[in-house]
Amino acid sequence: MPFAPLADALRRALVDIVGPAHVLDDPSITGGFARDWTGRFAGSTAAVVRPGSTAEVAAVLVACAGAGVAVVPQGGNTGLVAGGVALGGELTLSLTRLDHIAPVEPVSAQVTAGAGVTLAALRRAASAAGLDFAVDLAARDTATIGGMVATNAGGLHVIRYGPMRAQLVGVEAVLSTGAVIGDLRGLLKDNTGYHWPSLLCGSEGTLAVVTRARLRLVPRPAEHAMALLAVADAATAVGVTAALRHSLPDVHAIELMTAAGVGLVCDTLGLPPPFARPAPFVVLVEAAGAPGVLERLAATVGVIAGVDDTAVAVEPDRRAMLWRYREAHTEAIARLGPAHKLDVTLPGPALGAFLPEVSELVTRLRPEARVWLFGHAGDGNVHVNVTGVEAGDDEVDAAVLELVAERGGSISAEHGIGRAKLAFLHLNRTPDELAAMRAVKRALDPAGILNPGVLLPGG
Amino acid sequence: MPFAPLADALRRALVDIVGPAHVLDDPSITGGFARDWTGRFAGSTAAVVRPGSTAEVAAVLVACAGAGVAVVPQGGNTGLVAGGVALGGELTLSLTRLDHIAPVEPVSAQVTAGAGVTLAALRRAASAAGLDFAVDLAARDTATIGGMVATNAGGLHVIRYGPMRAQLVGVEAVLSTGAVIGDLRGLLKDNTGYHWPSLLCGSEGTLAVVTRARLRLVPRPAEHAMALLAVADAATAVGVTAALRHSLPDVHAIELMTAAGVGLVCDTLGLPPPFARPAPFVVLVEAAGAPGVLERLAATVGVIAGVDDTAVAVEPDRRAMLWRYREAHTEAIARLGPAHKLDVTLPGPALGAFLPEVSELVTRLRPEARVWLFGHAGDGNVHVNVTGVEAGDDEVDAAVLELVAERGGSISAEHGIGRAKLAFLHLNRTPDELAAMRAVKRALDPAGILNPGVLLPGG
Repeated sequence: MPFAPLADALRRALVDIVGPAHVLDDPSITGGFARDWTGRFAGSTAAVVRPGSTAEVAAVLVACAGAGVAVVPQGGNTGLVAGGVALGGELTLSLTRLDHIAPVEPVSAQVTAGAGVTLAALRRAASAAGLDFAVDLAARDTATIGGMVATNAGGLHVIRYGPMRAQLVGVEAVLSTGAVIGDLRGLLKDNTGYHWPSLLCGSEGTLAVVTRARLRLVPRPAEHAMALLAVADAATAVGVTAALRHSLPDVHAIELMTAAGVGLVCDTLGLPPPFARPAPFVVLVEAAGAPGVLERLAATVGVIAGVDDTAVAVEPDRRAMLWRYREAHTEAIARLGPAHKLDVTLPGPALGAFLPEVSELVTRLRPEARVWLFGHAGDGNVHVNVTGVEAGDDEVDAAVLELVAERGGSISAEHGIGRAKLAFLHLNRTPDELAAMRAVKRALDPAGILNPGVLLPGG
Repeated sequence: MPFAPLADALRRALVDIVGPAHVLDDPSITGGFARDWTGRFAGSTAAVVRPGSTAEVAAVLVACAGAGVAVVPQGGNTGLVAGGVALGGELTLSLTRLDHIAPVEPVSAQVTAGAGVTLAALRRAASAAGLDFAVDLAARDTATIGGMVATNAGGLHVIRYGPMRAQLVGVEAVLSTGAVIGDLRGLLKDNTGYHWPSLLCGSEGTLAVVTRARLRLVPRPAEHAMALLAVADAATAVGVTAALRHSLPDVHAIELMTAAGVGLVCDTLGLPPPFARPAPFVVLVEAAGAPGVLERLAATVGVIAGVDDTAVAVEPDRRAMLWRYREAHTEAIARLGPAHKLDVTLPGPALGAFLPEVSELVTRLRPEARVWLFGHAGDGNVHVNVTGVEAGDDEVDAAVLELVAERGGSISAEHGIGRAKLAFLHLNRTPDELAAMRAVKRALDPAGILNPGVLLPGG
């Protein structure tokens, strides 16, 4: 649909709904809302509207639907695929004022949070109640719960707790018709119709605007222990990963790195190498749970074949140091210049062969390129970063994603499709599936105003 | 939509698709398919069609959509709410021939199973691979995976592993247009559009016909330990339940019983009472995991306030005996005559007050009634059984379900809506939500032939 300019009548209606202070249309202010945090995507927005309640969200959507004005819902604007940023003059619906956190409910260990609550604020509230929230990610100070629901955020502990969808006990959301759907009762068992939380989670703002979420919290582990494990090759690394997943009690995170990545991190940040003899692949494993975690970790690792060396950490400082080898990858790679970042998942059995194959593929295509492989290997998710090629060199991305799809993998493990990956969606979804998605979109957003051009090609 | 009789042309088309042996229309044979296993719901079916592949399912649906013939998908026919049984002459699509189980994939610990695979067969396959399937229920020898997906089956271990939806890594399903959607790649992270597995799970055959499921398997626990805990009242029972959920490592099941139910079971089956002094409420807790389960269970129970007595079991025979007190409730209650069985969930904080309240409500309404309360209390799910009232006395059901809804609960925790609970769905879903569900239904089943009259009032 074409983007109508913000007519006076609509502007007045919006001001009536949210108050004049919350309709922003000075380009010097709204510009920041129409640019993603990486700076890669920048456009313009007709106005930024900041509702303060679910009822205001509903009224805004009804007004926009009536005027045929496209709306981009926006949370903390930390997305990576241009799914929450107005690029073509759409209205931006900023949900950061919905930042209320209800008291943590201790019997069920759940909490209701507004869409605009940041992950960090939610984690503080959970922590104050002696509990923890299962999803964590680097953008925690800015990323909001609404955006994390809309994108089904993942992170480090998916292997243990699942992604955002698995934390979502209930949702309140507003359709573009103004109808409010979902509930926040916090029921763990409720078979009374289609499951809105699951459908809306990962729908990238194309079906409804999430206003509140009912979230499960998890017990805070009594103890943590972690280890870096040196292994000889990719196939062994994947085997070690599977063995850890299946036999380690309280497994909390399993990450994968290569000798090249660890070497780059050590060189860039001046860290000592983790092992006396550099390991071709390094598996990071963390366990967290009831007392005795270290003993259980040691017992499990002790019987896993293929581990050539280990570095263990229990105390927080030492654990933070071992995590640095993994977490500093992004920073170290950034110093090499702009990287192509491809966030893919492979089926478990295909991962071992994929790792060397993707490196060979890229260097065959672009001999000057360097390929950095790391990620949450416990769930098959690998970040394929490529440096040393032009920023706009889409051929590299296409080649990698085509290989991923051929090997049965996902072209977007965590980040979603947004607009950035729209051209590759056909690699994972058949025309029949895209048609079915469009039908669901039309059913719930008949006006077609919610995030047009995001997630669905031509939709 | 009206039910068209099975015209000759459609019959010939179906015979061409699945072969003459798999189009059954002799009423002496089809009668069993049109009657649920409780005998409470019985009707008639124009024919039973038994496709042998996904392609045959698609062709059958296209033929039926073209002829405007309603289709009831059916698995093991163990449902309790008349959601999978033809009552008004619809065609029955029996999926039991889709009974192939692919080899268990050990790296990801996943398996692909056809819709017609029984739960027992799936569990045997998992067990042979040294793994376990997380959902278990009494109808395991007959209930099929397709039906369990369509109804989002729950069971004893939801508190630990979640319901069927949480086991579903992927799904293959056929729309009434003949389009096949979903995938069986087994990816744990895949943010590339609307999540078919979650949407179809619990949709009771109204959106699509599930033909195959990709399921996660779980490690087989090394040890089990369980205990019955005697507590003085409902509020304490709920408090003990919450404490166990939050602090017991490897918690595997938490069930609740009352003195009346335990007494009935003991009297009926000749079991010795579990405690020297009868306990008003009994909490059953089971833990299962790495070695040391009993010690961790004892340590946790030892510091929980409100436990007056305990009976512990570790060995399989002794555990089976303690489980009898809980599992024999259904059998013991059945001997009292037909029971009204209401399967509800309350929010955690509301459960303690609800238990005495619902008993008082029913006995005030029907002084001759007896109320039996038991269930999977760890997730707020209570089975409210009422005996001593007429089978058709809907006023009792209505009163209980209205109280449940007032207290923020679900009128159907596990069983679904089907046709049996259609009249009460408005207690849990707003007109806006029902309209949104109907819109989704129309989007994916434009011909309206899939399970009309099930789940959606007037739909």
